[in-house]
Amino acid sequence: MKVIIVGGVAGGASCAARLRRLDEKAEIIMVERGPYVSYANCGLPYHIGGVIEKESSLLVANVKLFKDQFNVDARVNCEATAISPNKKTITFRNTVTGEETIETYDKLVLSPGAVSVRPPLPGIDLPGIFHVRTVPDAHAVNEWLTKGSEFLTGMDKYSGFQTIRPKTRAVVIGGGFIGLEMVENLVHRGFEVTLVEMIDQVLPMIDKEHADVVAGYLRKHGVKLALADGVAGFKQGAKGAIDVETKSGKIFPADVVILALGVRPDTTLAKMAGLEIGQRGGIRVNNQMITSNPDIFAVGDAVEVKDFVTGEWSLVALAGPANRQGRIAADVIAGRNSTFRGTQGTSVIGVFGATVAWTGVSEKTLNRLGLTDYEKIYIYPNSHAGYYPGAKPIAMKVIFRKSDGKLLGAQALGLDLVEKRIDVIAAMLQMGGTIYDLEEAELCYAPPYGSAKDPVNFAGMVAADILRNDMPLTHWPEAKKGFMLDVRETFELAVEQVENAVHIPMGELRARLGELPKDKEINVICRSGQRAYIATRILLQNGFSAKTISGGMLSLAHNYLFNQGIVQV
Amino acid sequence: MKVIIVGGVAGGASCAARLRRLDEKAEIIMVERGPYVSYANCGLPYHIGGVIEKESSLLVANVKLFKDQFNVDARVNCEATAISPNKKTITFRNTVTGEETIETYDKLVLSPGAVSVRPPLPGIDLPGIFHVRTVPDAHAVNEWLTKGSEFLTGMDKYSGFQTIRPKTRAVVIGGGFIGLEMVENLVHRGFEVTLVEMIDQVLPMIDKEHADVVAGYLRKHGVKLALADGVAGFKQGAKGAIDVETKSGKIFPADVVILALGVRPDTTLAKMAGLEIGQRGGIRVNNQMITSNPDIFAVGDAVEVKDFVTGEWSLVALAGPANRQGRIAADVIAGRNSTFRGTQGTSVIGVFGATVAWTGVSEKTLNRLGLTDYEKIYIYPNSHAGYYPGAKPIAMKVIFRKSDGKLLGAQALGLDLVEKRIDVIAAMLQMGGTIYDLEEAELCYAPPYGSAKDPVNFAGMVAADILRNDMPLTHWPEAKKGFMLDVRETFELAVEQVENAVHIPMGELRARLGELPKDKEINVICRSGQRAYIATRILLQNGFSAKTISGGMLSLAHNYLFNQGIVQV
Repeated sequence: MKVIIVGGVAGGASCAARLRRLDEKAEIIMVERGPYVSYANCGLPYHIGGVIEKESSLLVANVKLFKDQFNVDARVNCEATAISPNKKTITFRNTVTGEETIETYDKLVLSPGAVSVRPPLPGIDLPGIFHVRTVPDAHAVNEWLTKGSEFLTGMDKYSGFQTIRPKTRAVVIGGGFIGLEMVENLVHRGFEVTLVEMIDQVLPMIDKEHADVVAGYLRKHGVKLALADGVAGFKQGAKGAIDVETKSGKIFPADVVILALGVRPDTTLAKMAGLEIGQRGGIRVNNQMITSNPDIFAVGDAVEVKDFVTGEWSLVALAGPANRQGRIAADVIAGRNSTFRGTQGTSVIGVFGATVAWTGVSEKTLNRLGLTDYEKIYIYPNSHAGYYPGAKPIAMKVIFRKSDGKLLGAQALGLDLVEKRIDVIAAMLQMGGTIYDLEEAELCYAPPYGSAKDPVNFAGMVAADILRNDMPLTHWPEAKKGFMLDVRETFELAVEQVENAVHIPMGELRARLGELPKDKEINVICRSGQRAYIATRILLQNGFSAKTISGGMLSLAHNYLFNQGIVQV
Repeated sequence: MKVIIVGGVAGGASCAARLRRLDEKAEIIMVERGPYVSYANCGLPYHIGGVIEKESSLLVANVKLFKDQFNVDARVNCEATAISPNKKTITFRNTVTGEETIETYDKLVLSPGAVSVRPPLPGIDLPGIFHVRTVPDAHAVNEWLTKGSEFLTGMDKYSGFQTIRPKTRAVVIGGGFIGLEMVENLVHRGFEVTLVEMIDQVLPMIDKEHADVVAGYLRKHGVKLALADGVAGFKQGAKGAIDVETKSGKIFPADVVILALGVRPDTTLAKMAGLEIGQRGGIRVNNQMITSNPDIFAVGDAVEVKDFVTGEWSLVALAGPANRQGRIAADVIAGRNSTFRGTQGTSVIGVFGATVAWTGVSEKTLNRLGLTDYEKIYIYPNSHAGYYPGAKPIAMKVIFRKSDGKLLGAQALGLDLVEKRIDVIAAMLQMGGTIYDLEEAELCYAPPYGSAKDPVNFAGMVAADILRNDMPLTHWPEAKKGFMLDVRETFELAVEQVENAVHIPMGELRARLGELPKDKEINVICRSGQRAYIATRILLQNGFSAKTISGGMLSLAHNYLFNQGIVQV
């Protein structure tokens, strides 16, 4: 059997190594159009930032290792230019020598990845505008940053030498993963950074209220944000700068521009081979990674995958799923019955010491799909026992099905032990878990690591209180429309008051029930929701109609999150 | 309804708060024999170590808060001295005034906790010997440590004043949670610490090969260990010291002795009430926390619980389960149908910057129960992407059912991101997950947080390779009895060789198969097991009989773990 794998990074490389282990006799050729196989593209922003010092650290494996360990014929600088599915042949062109070769195959695996979106904007080809997808991309950015600006500032008045203005200003376009990681790394390298993002939030994958906290955190670290403002074009500006023009008419002069507008599946080859392409623009595969042609597989960023929660076809450019898909394709080629379970989109990003992580579906995706059978909670538990030094609040949003408590998604951000909570929820979600399972989870607890009621348990308990009808819930801003009762202590009101809210401290509530209306729904506020829940219970059991405002003051105003140290510098 | 709760810490306090939220009208009395309710006993060692500076930080709630927020009549210094289950009365004695009161109850909840084991050894009542279970215990230790030794060393030759020898030497007896946390905190406070442990390992809950790494790490931090050596007694020694005598005849002079010999359920009251006691010595309850008397509930460290994995009755002194049990008892009293799912024993402990965590069953428990349907793997993945600075290996042991892949338990240790992997496996185990589920887990990945193949995925993949018969496995020291093939590179052998192993580097294996015997089982060694797996695949597919040695050189010798940075200082 002769298997050809096009693409030698995450999905392709995994597929090649796995296939060899399963089939010692197969002929395996793996081609990569770039100069490297199996490199760590997730590390590129950190290499540009100087955190990962050596380029060589990014090269996880090489042609020799594939030969020695796996007897795989790995070829770099080798581009696939044509496929003939009927003859089962594929044409390669050596990008250095131009030489063309044709290979036959029994099975073909396409792992071409995705290409960076590069809209045809005026001036987009000006020098100094980059995207960051491959090692050569990163190399080019590093070279550009290291050189001074080509604009000479004239004679230095002391030395008499001509001076070169150093590069100091960067504009990053696009606020997704790569965009934010590039922002952080350019700041780390000493640049003044402006982030331009077309929609009104960073991190489009999460909900706006959490993204707004991230945006505030970026500003706190000196990043200028131009949200809800797309880029219109680029012009050669004064003193060697590139002027980045936005749709709103703003101009940001930059010494370097990073395009991080996202990626789209590279379907060039798939289209040549006449393979079915899905509505989202990715290669359509079944759950064994087989395309519309039974001898051609496709894996990684180029394919559409089923969203584990919604069942929708989706595009997910993540290394973890790509690796698993590569393994599954190898399994199936070797005659095994492996299947891909779909993707949850579990992700994490670090920004200036804060961590933002999520899994499953966001509320805006539910809204887009018109799904209404859900509830959400906002909680702000400590990262570990509050009495042990260094605990930091984690802002968590957990979304679950109202009808049966099934987990749908979760988002968390904070400064400490954030992603482990999302990992646990991701595992539960994968297993079809409910909020009741979160409630009962038995997780690691010692004072430096968690709490006897871990944030995951706490999320489950709060959510279960809602579904058991113990705690009717409401959210800002709807909550403001009703009668509001604030049960915080008087000293807390000094920090922030809620207009029109009646104030009765929790400890006095039982004695002062007579002051509250029986004919109105009472929306109860406290700092985080905990005392409001207790108050809600008291009110409900005394014949009042009451709802807890989820997340209390902490979920009302994002400045609160700052005040509470969630995004403290 | 009148409910009396005996014990005001984890289980009792949770029960009281939950019950009030469910039933605003019930009369709730919560009594605590000590001076504080709802204190953080898990924080006591850190308070003694000075990490948690203020004693007040440990006091999570107080009598006033229970009154104000929960309308609970919380009484401190109030000891329950007698129960009459027929009359449904309970007698209290105020430990300060001696005053006795009798209260009736409709439902009684016992949450008396556990008492520190204090064997009747000679000299055990000498001043300077403590256990650490309550705030007053910690207070007493702190007072003792702060005072100089009472032994006066005579006139200082320079100042002419009499000098007092400071306390510098501590002996901790017992190497469980509290013992190890006390060791760390006493070292942190500047003491020379000796740990005496009766069995031949620290952390009796985990398997010896992992515990041995922890022991080595303790030694590296200057802790003297006397393992497999019980304490025989205490004598007043020279210069104000307590001489700790061990069964082997050693004498360790100490200025302070901490007894951390574990705890046993406090069943005094339960026995008075004639409640059924289990074989392990804890109060027997059903899965709704009801004792043999339908009006008496029991929760927390005093009860026996079903082990989630083995189904055996067991004693688990952990705050998380205690809290959940308290909630469940409250639910059931309030007429709800909540049940406790049993315990997995998920735990974590920090020692000198390293983290040791585990969940589910250990191999020695399986052996004790005579259960043989299991396999285990040893892996040493990086805490996060190896190309991002600061990655540290995690030593993981995962135990699973051989017949169906079901997760049974896992143990992990390392310097970074250890407990989050155990948390994920704990969640999977709770959901009845298998190693195939670990394989497919979609977890947070970005270079500072994990890898595209997370350690959890990696564990699943390795385990699945075994169950799919792709990788027959063997373990040290059995592996040494067979024919051994070492596929490491020549330079690696310079560090440590395996006697009698034939050496063929992985890259040369395919060309040198003729050098290997077809009639013998070949046990393959590499550094961590990864290349050995590839070699095993090559051998099996070429008609050889082969097994991979799980964990390779890393699982052979614990000094390797040190060398590889797992327990680097």
